[in-house]
Amino acid sequence: MSNQEATASAIDHLRTILPQDGTRDALIHSVIPNLLQSIADVAQALRNSHQVSAAGTANTFGDDQLNVDVIAENIIRATIAQCPSIVTASSEEDPIEQAVEHHATSSSSEQYTLAFDPLDGSSIISANWTVGAIFSLWDGPSALNQDPATRQIVSILGVFGPRTTAIVALRVSGSPVPKTCLELALGPAVSNPTSATVTTPTKWHLTAPTLTLAPRSKYFSPANLRMAADDPAYMTLLTSFITRRYTLRYAGGLVPDIVHMLVQGQGVYVSPVLAGGDGSRGQASKPKLRRLYELCPLALVVECAGGAAVDPVDGTAVLAREVKDCGERGGLLCGGREEVVEVVKTLLS
Amino acid sequence: MSNQEATASAIDHLRTILPQDGTRDALIHSVIPNLLQSIADVAQALRNSHQVSAAGTANTFGDDQLNVDVIAENIIRATIAQCPSIVTASSEEDPIEQAVEHHATSSSSEQYTLAFDPLDGSSIISANWTVGAIFSLWDGPSALNQDPATRQIVSILGVFGPRTTAIVALRVSGSPVPKTCLELALGPAVSNPTSATVTTPTKWHLTAPTLTLAPRSKYFSPANLRMAADDPAYMTLLTSFITRRYTLRYAGGLVPDIVHMLVQGQGVYVSPVLAGGDGSRGQASKPKLRRLYELCPLALVVECAGGAAVDPVDGTAVLAREVKDCGERGGLLCGGREEVVEVVKTLLS
Repeated sequence: MSNQEATASAIDHLRTILPQDGTRDALIHSVIPNLLQSIADVAQALRNSHQVSAAGTANTFGDDQLNVDVIAENIIRATIAQCPSIVTASSEEDPIEQAVEHHATSSSSEQYTLAFDPLDGSSIISANWTVGAIFSLWDGPSALNQDPATRQIVSILGVFGPRTTAIVALRVSGSPVPKTCLELALGPAVSNPTSATVTTPTKWHLTAPTLTLAPRSKYFSPANLRMAADDPAYMTLLTSFITRRYTLRYAGGLVPDIVHMLVQGQGVYVSPVLAGGDGSRGQASKPKLRRLYELCPLALVVECAGGAAVDPVDGTAVLAREVKDCGERGGLLCGGREEVVEVVKTLLS
Repeated sequence: MSNQEATASAIDHLRTILPQDGTRDALIHSVIPNLLQSIADVAQALRNSHQVSAAGTANTFGDDQLNVDVIAENIIRATIAQCPSIVTASSEEDPIEQAVEHHATSSSSEQYTLAFDPLDGSSIISANWTVGAIFSLWDGPSALNQDPATRQIVSILGVFGPRTTAIVALRVSGSPVPKTCLELALGPAVSNPTSATVTTPTKWHLTAPTLTLAPRSKYFSPANLRMAADDPAYMTLLTSFITRRYTLRYAGGLVPDIVHMLVQGQGVYVSPVLAGGDGSRGQASKPKLRRLYELCPLALVVECAGGAAVDPVDGTAVLAREVKDCGERGGLLCGGREEVVEVVKTLLS
């Protein structure tokens, strides 16, 4: 791919993937561009929040770390208010579906529900490790009691690292491309010579039009590793990865860990749940990941890249089960399709 | 610590740590500020290098990834040329000590040798994970055949993540503070209203004046994990971490992995070498880390934070042995002092 092609307008590219019949115009021209802009704005806010670096150290800036979550939430909420087609929203910080009050009205009949995690990776942001934001769009006025496989149509991951990148996964029925997963990157900042303030960089470049996951892998990401102390099957799995000389990558942030897999084109991520994982066998056995804000969006991303995302408890697809409540949690096993099948066998043996 | 104190000039703070007798004026007023500025400049260059994101994927931008290394090297080389007191330099990209040609002359009698790794973490930069730069300053015209414990006086780690931060470790004899390890963070960008170009953010804030490592830890970072397939002692160590419910964090980049430890105030990092580790037992057994560009600078950082950094082969301090050649490699075991002693016992048992 030439440099010129790579920097073609990302939105122009999305237009070619989505239905051309006008039924998704608000999605293409308002919702997705605004969410991408909010990622750019959160990235800039994080760069300027230098005090978060001290969180967790002796000079406790614990509140500052919390402030970063709040800043990200506020930026995204302000963005949502600009999108009349997002009629309902909830976030990991405020996990209740609420109707959105808009600054503008729209003649569009499109109605979407947004579920988002404004800043995923709070345990690693103090060390200045890459963190992320997670967005998922559902058709209609609620994400609850819906079929995730057909009603959750878009996931966007914002990746805040040395660069600002975004993964966009789309599975919109009636599209010329049934499903796709692509990567965008924010280009150079552009300043406005007539303004004293630096303008936010807004140019997204299409850097990878098709991210795919190979069926098998040589990378593994074992989450909640402490659980292996109580779960012989998980310990067996780990030993098997090591003896088969897999390469370990585990940031401990869901977004960077899944994005590593997508960019490498291979990988397997395991966040298991102890049988009867209700926490009765200690903190490590509690499921950690939120179904609405983490599992469903990430599962769509992985499936759109040709991989599989399943519940490690029984091997069923994450997207096979409706979300009944914003607070639901679960485990996650995802990655290349063959790899996932094998790991399920090991974990359930 | 108040916000006002936290944003006190970082250089003003360094001035209070270093000798006040004029013998380190060039170090304080020229060398360290210029190296910090080069970190800011590399950070900006990385943010604008959006194409690196595609490296490692099907649409191969492999050359672009290499370009990022070259861009960082060039920025730092240009900085060095501004510092008459840096008389010799070598880098991981060009591992030969060479006299520096300067743009300016100096009346200072101070002479330093700089060893640097312009961009550490090439395997994870395509995934937009945090990467780093490593700088170490040695007294005199060479880093070779010198006592690292006394002649290597400053290490600086540039951390390129959601923010831009830097770890500065100093152990300069005759200083009011014998050794210290601190964290800086780059503050908000400042634009020049009379210019059409965005000016580089240059304001470093002191965010953590004293980073310390607790003697014991609950975090572990196991590098070169595949080696455990051949080394029962390493496998025993891993099993021990898991059963004692340590938390895994392993980015696979030396800078982010050590910085995580420093910011959390605890941790243990293990990059072992197989007994007789000459590569004859396969790729995994070869020592990976460069002594001059990685091990010595990181060991100074860890020691200045009160931790220990030893050779996993025999448990001797990394800084106890001179660097004879720019290409030397080795393993690394570092972290809290008690933790390191215990791990040595396990690895050598």
